[in-house]
Amino acid sequence: MTRDFLADFAEMSAFGATARNGLDRLAGTESHRDVRAWLTELLTEQGFEAQSDAAGNLFWLRRIAGDAPFVLFGSHLDSQPKGGRYDGSYGVLAAAHAAITAAGRLRAAGRTPRYNIAVVDWFNEEGARFKPSMMGSGVFTGKLDLDAVLATTDRLGTSVRDALDAMGARGDFVLGPVAGYAEIHIEQGRSLEEQGITIGVVEATWSAHKFEILVRGDQSHTGSTRMADRKDALLGAAHLVVGVRGICAAFPEEALHTSVGELNVFPNSPVTVAGEVSLLVDLRAPSDATLEQAGVLLRAAIAAAEAASGTEIEIVKVNTWNSGPFLERGIALVERAAEESGRTSTRVLTLAGHDATNVKDIAPTALVFVPSVAGITHNEAEYTRDEDALAGVEVFTRVVEQLALGALDGEPAR
Amino acid sequence: MTRDFLADFAEMSAFGATARNGLDRLAGTESHRDVRAWLTELLTEQGFEAQSDAAGNLFWLRRIAGDAPFVLFGSHLDSQPKGGRYDGSYGVLAAAHAAITAAGRLRAAGRTPRYNIAVVDWFNEEGARFKPSMMGSGVFTGKLDLDAVLATTDRLGTSVRDALDAMGARGDFVLGPVAGYAEIHIEQGRSLEEQGITIGVVEATWSAHKFEILVRGDQSHTGSTRMADRKDALLGAAHLVVGVRGICAAFPEEALHTSVGELNVFPNSPVTVAGEVSLLVDLRAPSDATLEQAGVLLRAAIAAAEAASGTEIEIVKVNTWNSGPFLERGIALVERAAEESGRTSTRVLTLAGHDATNVKDIAPTALVFVPSVAGITHNEAEYTRDEDALAGVEVFTRVVEQLALGALDGEPAR
Repeated sequence: MTRDFLADFAEMSAFGATARNGLDRLAGTESHRDVRAWLTELLTEQGFEAQSDAAGNLFWLRRIAGDAPFVLFGSHLDSQPKGGRYDGSYGVLAAAHAAITAAGRLRAAGRTPRYNIAVVDWFNEEGARFKPSMMGSGVFTGKLDLDAVLATTDRLGTSVRDALDAMGARGDFVLGPVAGYAEIHIEQGRSLEEQGITIGVVEATWSAHKFEILVRGDQSHTGSTRMADRKDALLGAAHLVVGVRGICAAFPEEALHTSVGELNVFPNSPVTVAGEVSLLVDLRAPSDATLEQAGVLLRAAIAAAEAASGTEIEIVKVNTWNSGPFLERGIALVERAAEESGRTSTRVLTLAGHDATNVKDIAPTALVFVPSVAGITHNEAEYTRDEDALAGVEVFTRVVEQLALGALDGEPAR
Repeated sequence: MTRDFLADFAEMSAFGATARNGLDRLAGTESHRDVRAWLTELLTEQGFEAQSDAAGNLFWLRRIAGDAPFVLFGSHLDSQPKGGRYDGSYGVLAAAHAAITAAGRLRAAGRTPRYNIAVVDWFNEEGARFKPSMMGSGVFTGKLDLDAVLATTDRLGTSVRDALDAMGARGDFVLGPVAGYAEIHIEQGRSLEEQGITIGVVEATWSAHKFEILVRGDQSHTGSTRMADRKDALLGAAHLVVGVRGICAAFPEEALHTSVGELNVFPNSPVTVAGEVSLLVDLRAPSDATLEQAGVLLRAAIAAAEAASGTEIEIVKVNTWNSGPFLERGIALVERAAEESGRTSTRVLTLAGHDATNVKDIAPTALVFVPSVAGITHNEAEYTRDEDALAGVEVFTRVVEQLALGALDGEPAR
């Protein structure tokens, strides 16, 4: 039975839907549990078996090659607050459809696959509820420590462990080393749309350095405290936010992205000068050298913000994801799959992090993009045209088939 | 029976105490309910009767003059988050002790008071949980609408109505017009301490204009969205916070206080450029003309922040408290009470708002200050020396006695 991808996608998008056609499906919430249950029902009917690992990653396994290892396909079902329907979710459903179709085609053609097939929903890719992002794939690839991850709490104090237990998502399944991984995702940029090309083949990822920062001032009264006596943590933070944006001016256009997306004020009362502000600085660049330079300028911006506000600003923690190329033979495989489907393709960079960025360091990995209208993402208005979504599934089905047949055998991780 | 003020103050300070000797007793919380119950027990033993009005103000009534109207004394028992023990609470307990002692003295002296005596805890003076501040006295004086106040919600969506009902604090008592009001409070500044003077007699209040502001950007991805495409609401807000501080430069030192104490980011995720930020700008000055000028400069700072960030910034609401003098005969009364107690006094301005600032517009009112060490306030380290605290109670007892005897009769509100 061939399922209708667009109908399934519309049904799936109802879990955590917002009034304005977006998604609010944070990791480990009820809507996340429910969309997983929905997809488990769909895939179980198609002969898949659901298994959770200790980090809350959910795998759907289809054994088509006896006791052979698995090739793995997927993305993430969690979203940003008021995020879009496509980011992550498109890739998981595309992987599920492609896996169903590929398994059927291989059997119909009488070909013997070398590997079993698994589809995955990586836990907490977005990092909106629990930090850092790409958490599940981070544990899977040995980049993050399982116990530290399980002990991580959200803003209300709920731990990953408790959130996973509440949704019945903490298991003891171990997938073992995978023979290959592929992921399809919306571009979250507008380069494909601007070039009129349907398939992006990711050749490298930008590096990201993320700084958890604490600004310490002195809590006092907005009315009665003399201006000269104040040590206003929010003023210090504001100088830093402006300074972080200013770092870009030292580099060519689009050589660096700088952002502060999260900022928390304490005590956050209208009549009290803030005693403390925590914030997260996000620096990204295609080149590690650029990021090193940007880090030096960030420290200068911190010193300037301290001086302008009389506060003390501390870098509490730095999380780094370094840039890296994707496997050339994986890139070529996707390009061939696009050509055989009659679709245009081009090589692109990914500025956003993806679970594939983690997995590429332990297994032969390919990352495929479809266009995003106007590049809008992490926004309810995020949109990918139906024809592009369907073209992506078609191309990705060929990728799944090829990986199951062992097309990336003998390749190193990258 | 004479009660020990300092012992009672220490006992009272346990309700909502923080580990670092401060208070975290937000309006309408359990610790606020409990401290009210404690004081009710204390005052009931002394012949007072507790009554709540519709806005959650709690009055303790002592009838010493038959059916005559009341003179009223008090302050507020709520605190800032991690605030100090003295702000508000000192004044309520001082009023309670002064009322007990004054009633006893009048009876012992065989004098016939003209008015009954009431002590009050005004609801939500701080405005930390529900906006605006000075809420209970605002309703009492007809400056705020009762229904609008009851419908006001905190950040978690709990309304004033529900918070009051949960603590059993919404009653139907109506005190009626009062014949006079007096309040004693810590200075929350350091002018008395610097001059070595024990009693401050407030002659006027600074004006305050408070602006609720919304910055609208466009929610997007911190990694993949081009810098030139961004409309970062947090960047706009940061420019505005810096701009608000800069307004002071246009005026002589201490002619104006500008602050942003509360700022909320949406969606506040580390990997998402903020779509919206709400914040509260607090401008205060001794002169209304200065505040008018500062308001013009605020609008210029808003325009500059919009231009620097590509955002739209809207002033959603303005709350204004205009400056005003206190009643000359009330000032003279406090000066005389200080002199008779052998205490030094001087006239001061209040930069912070107080419930007395509201009440002075409907009844003859006096506001008395005692020194604050280093002017520290809205901070766990807030401190007033025991000898100053006791001196304040002594002077205030004379004020209560005089008001009960009709010393401000025939005076207009101010």
